[in-house]
Amino acid sequence: MSETLKRKIIIDCDPGHDDAIAILLAAGTPQIELVGITTVAGNAEVEKTTRNALKVCEIAGIHDVPVMKGCGQPMVRKRETAADIHGDSGMDGPVLPEPTRQVENEHAVDFIIRKLLESDGDITLVPVGPLTNIAMAMRREPAILPKIQEIVLMGGGTFGNWTPAAEFNIFVDAEAAKVVFESGVPITMMGLDLTHQALATYEVADRIAQIDNPAGKFVSELLVFFRKTYLEVFGFEHPPVHDVCSVAYCIDPSVVETRKLRVDIETRGELTYGMTVVDVGGVTGREPNVNVAMKLDHAKFWNMVTAALQHFS
Amino acid sequence: MSETLKRKIIIDCDPGHDDAIAILLAAGTPQIELVGITTVAGNAEVEKTTRNALKVCEIAGIHDVPVMKGCGQPMVRKRETAADIHGDSGMDGPVLPEPTRQVENEHAVDFIIRKLLESDGDITLVPVGPLTNIAMAMRREPAILPKIQEIVLMGGGTFGNWTPAAEFNIFVDAEAAKVVFESGVPITMMGLDLTHQALATYEVADRIAQIDNPAGKFVSELLVFFRKTYLEVFGFEHPPVHDVCSVAYCIDPSVVETRKLRVDIETRGELTYGMTVVDVGGVTGREPNVNVAMKLDHAKFWNMVTAALQHFS
Amino acid sequence: MSETLKRKIIIDCDPGHDDAIAILLAAGTPQIELVGITTVAGNAEVEKTTRNALKVCEIAGIHDVPVMKGCGQPMVRKRETAADIHGDSGMDGPVLPEPTRQVENEHAVDFIIRKLLESDGDITLVPVGPLTNIAMAMRREPAILPKIQEIVLMGGGTFGNWTPAAEFNIFVDAEAAKVVFESGVPITMMGLDLTHQALATYEVADRIAQIDNPAGKFVSELLVFFRKTYLEVFGFEHPPVHDVCSVAYCIDPSVVETRKLRVDIETRGELTYGMTVVDVGGVTGREPNVNVAMKLDHAKFWNMVTAALQHFS
Amino acid sequence: MSETLKRKIIIDCDPGHDDAIAILLAAGTPQIELVGITTVAGNAEVEKTTRNALKVCEIAGIHDVPVMKGCGQPMVRKRETAADIHGDSGMDGPVLPEPTRQVENEHAVDFIIRKLLESDGDITLVPVGPLTNIAMAMRREPAILPKIQEIVLMGGGTFGNWTPAAEFNIFVDAEAAKVVFESGVPITMMGLDLTHQALATYEVADRIAQIDNPAGKFVSELLVFFRKTYLEVFGFEHPPVHDVCSVAYCIDPSVVETRKLRVDIETRGELTYGMTVVDVGGVTGREPNVNVAMKLDHAKFWNMVTAALQHFS
Repeated sequence: MSETLKRKIIIDCDPGHDDAIAILLAAGTPQIELVGITTVAGNAEVEKTTRNALKVCEIAGIHDVPVMKGCGQPMVRKRETAADIHGDSGMDGPVLPEPTRQVENEHAVDFIIRKLLESDGDITLVPVGPLTNIAMAMRREPAILPKIQEIVLMGGGTFGNWTPAAEFNIFVDAEAAKVVFESGVPITMMGLDLTHQALATYEVADRIAQIDNPAGKFVSELLVFFRKTYLEVFGFEHPPVHDVCSVAYCIDPSVVETRKLRVDIETRGELTYGMTVVDVGGVTGREPNVNVAMKLDHAKFWNMVTAALQHFS
Repeated sequence: MSETLKRKIIIDCDPGHDDAIAILLAAGTPQIELVGITTVAGNAEVEKTTRNALKVCEIAGIHDVPVMKGCGQPMVRKRETAADIHGDSGMDGPVLPEPTRQVENEHAVDFIIRKLLESDGDITLVPVGPLTNIAMAMRREPAILPKIQEIVLMGGGTFGNWTPAAEFNIFVDAEAAKVVFESGVPITMMGLDLTHQALATYEVADRIAQIDNPAGKFVSELLVFFRKTYLEVFGFEHPPVHDVCSVAYCIDPSVVETRKLRVDIETRGELTYGMTVVDVGGVTGREPNVNVAMKLDHAKFWNMVTAALQHFS
Repeated sequence: MSETLKRKIIIDCDPGHDDAIAILLAAGTPQIELVGITTVAGNAEVEKTTRNALKVCEIAGIHDVPVMKGCGQPMVRKRETAADIHGDSGMDGPVLPEPTRQVENEHAVDFIIRKLLESDGDITLVPVGPLTNIAMAMRREPAILPKIQEIVLMGGGTFGNWTPAAEFNIFVDAEAAKVVFESGVPITMMGLDLTHQALATYEVADRIAQIDNPAGKFVSELLVFFRKTYLEVFGFEHPPVHDVCSVAYCIDPSVVETRKLRVDIETRGELTYGMTVVDVGGVTGREPNVNVAMKLDHAKFWNMVTAALQHFS
Repeated sequence: MSETLKRKIIIDCDPGHDDAIAILLAAGTPQIELVGITTVAGNAEVEKTTRNALKVCEIAGIHDVPVMKGCGQPMVRKRETAADIHGDSGMDGPVLPEPTRQVENEHAVDFIIRKLLESDGDITLVPVGPLTNIAMAMRREPAILPKIQEIVLMGGGTFGNWTPAAEFNIFVDAEAAKVVFESGVPITMMGLDLTHQALATYEVADRIAQIDNPAGKFVSELLVFFRKTYLEVFGFEHPPVHDVCSVAYCIDPSVVETRKLRVDIETRGELTYGMTVVDVGGVTGREPNVNVAMKLDHAKFWNMVTAALQHFS
């Protein structure tokens, strides 16, 4: 595959166990050009998620992808994190050396704006944390809107995990999500309906454990911790690696079946704040605005991941 | 089965095609003692739903069950009806003679209160329309609360049909639903998850068509109309007879599998008003308050219905 | 003045210090025919407000006015009371004997409905507590709407006292208030703008102290307690006898200047639940629905009250 | 007065008739150092308000103050403008030449962040339009918070003008207002309670008409148009020059009496979105966060304005 046919993506993330694997999948797959990694508060405070992003780069030898720190709190609400899922560091489990790499001086929002404005409209945004950076960029510089090729986000679903109605990423900054979902930009949504199929089963964990390089070892350790908290908090037998789905879709959309549906964000409900209201039955009569991921090709998905991990030296 | 072991129920309804069949199932099943039929605005205005209830009694020869007219509008909101599903009369399709029976002078709310206060706590309320009458009775006379054996309602679900998030009965009077769901009374909820399994397939319609009495003929004609509107409005191949599930459960709870879950009513959402927020994953940590129906024994269900219809002369 | 020209009123109240004085003003003024006293939860639980209403009748020798107990909790919300203002009994201060009179068997809501339906449209409702009973009656029997001559309520205002935006009576049951304010019935609203002018100054208290009968003595003692809590809780030098304004207006509307304005009830605000949104500037362009009381004739008002108290033996 | 004692301010505005006068007051008063003028969508689209700001500078010969264009829409909501008050251009009335000056390349949000970070904490922000730019800067770079000396904003009040409950500037972007009011930065609020005292009476208009320079002539013409729309839309005899109050307060705080009160922003109300909920009575018990302007020294205020206008050549 020629260099020019690579898909350019910016991963906007809050590592986070599954975020880390998502970065590795992108960096380890030749068809992807990882333009940058931007961070946001979500699973943990932005200082922590930024340090975690740098550590992931360090462990995997990713030296040429810039990392930019982004917003430390939601657009309007108070911050909420997910320490019971990801531990105090936001990426508990593996013991990693301090990163030698530094974050760039440019703010994540500015980086996203600049890269998009400089682009030929060929950059895909892959937000796998709260949508704060993306919405802030859209409001700060609306001229980026026609430059975004697609937004392939992890978030939402027809049910919730943080509340009965809301998924964590959307719940943490529903106002930002509202801005993004109403932006008119093409959106593909990896919601819980899909990501709960992306389970790191024992068989998967075994395959990864046999990958003999630091990236493989790192992911193995991540999965051990993630399996434990997902069992304790949610009662899942196997942990779902939510964020990885977005990158997998960018590599090969056929890994996921989608439906074009209307999705709007509830920002006022007493019990439903942060819900992605998915009009599955088409009862609103409103124009569909989101490609909603429904079904994952589990085998193809994990083949992608293991291939990428093996790619690291 | 001895007379004293009959299960006493009051059907609170807004006929309505499926309401009509629910009444017939109750009246045609020996294990049920139908204490009364109360009406409410919902599928149509209360004058229409009351007349429809009387017509159902007339056609089936139900002479000994009192019919009481109830509330004509929701507790707080403006009224909304469902003429596109049930036609202008609220029960379009069959051409029926005007009822010779009259509605009782007692208001539905007063009847419900009186019967419960007079009872030994052995009456089950079966609301299959908006919950206005039930909530008004609870607020008017809280002493009824410990007298209600169970509420087996049709409404809600983990998804909606009137809006993406809300089912019609709950949406029409979410404030009433909030009162009922927070009442502490044992509730079994036949939501859309369950009732969309109660489909009147062609095979079912054929069996009913062969029942050679006015009740059978009436239901056959109801299903023809209902099939048509459900196809046009919702794209369903077969119409779901929602309300009938509640009565079937009263006759034999084993027709339905349930889960005990926390369910609360959203009354403030911009997009989610009237949603039954079902905590399927148990993430709120709140005490379950509702028996949520999940799985229907389709064969047993329709056997009940056809047996009841054959029971009429 | 001939008997037939008396203004017929039903006082719906939650005594309550100022409620008590309102009852006495009505019962002690010949131009008023007090058709009944209905009670509601508000300043205290309904059992207490009912007992307080009976005690007021007892102390003042009011034997021919029926007292009916009403709703014990708001239409939709949880109950909230005002023990810090009115004390634990709801009418702390005077030591009163237990009432010998009994409450009627009829429920307040039923009484209101019955009296209105039997009337020639000449009954004014005077709700000076939360609007629960009135709204429940309207929803239970909409036929009463054209029978209500006027509703002269105490509640609301352009500012709040229970929250920065909401007055207590409306806050306690904003859903009921919404039903009443949207009912189309003529409404005159004695809000805080007006009632904070109805101050029991020292001069007023002195005049009342000189009234040598049990009613006068009772009111004197009420004012001592009410002065104390209003100073402690709200920092008022003199206590405002809110509820009395509604009865005074029924006796002689010229005691109050009003403006016809649009008033709607906020039921969804995070900080403004229960606010009477008064369109003083006419910016909504919506049809005015409420006579909003703006200015009190303080001298005329207290002359009415003292005259009424002197009327008791 | 030595240069170093000048008060440094950034005016964030949406000219706008009163915005224009506010700029002139700042630029024409020696005690003020106008660090920059940033623009925002509000009275009109941001392209228009920016051009208007440039025109004001042109007409008054303000050459050394940079003008930066800011956000073109609110943080979360759809944009709303006030063409019926300010005309299609946002500053209808005076016929002005096209500005020869250009807007700076720096975005308003970036300028605000940079100037604050570079400062010794001696810059006051004077937002007299919707608070979008200020809130966006706070979320983009929280490090500016301790650097802001004070925010002297025009907006809000204990009553509304755009809706019965909400003033225009806050209503247009209540989410931004929420961010600012909860920021912990010292805030002085010139709400409608105050600004409706800042009336350009006939006497005032006459004084200004006699100022024989382009700035005076320009303001005279602004007032003619503004008088007309305020009479037509709001029924005011004299137009209130809201935004000017903020600058006047920066020059001499004694021109305004203030009270320290708790103020929070309602973002969820159905009828009260964008209301500044002012706890005048202190009923919330929450810590005061805003200096609320209550009373204007009308004579001193207009003396400031006329003195400033005379300052221009």
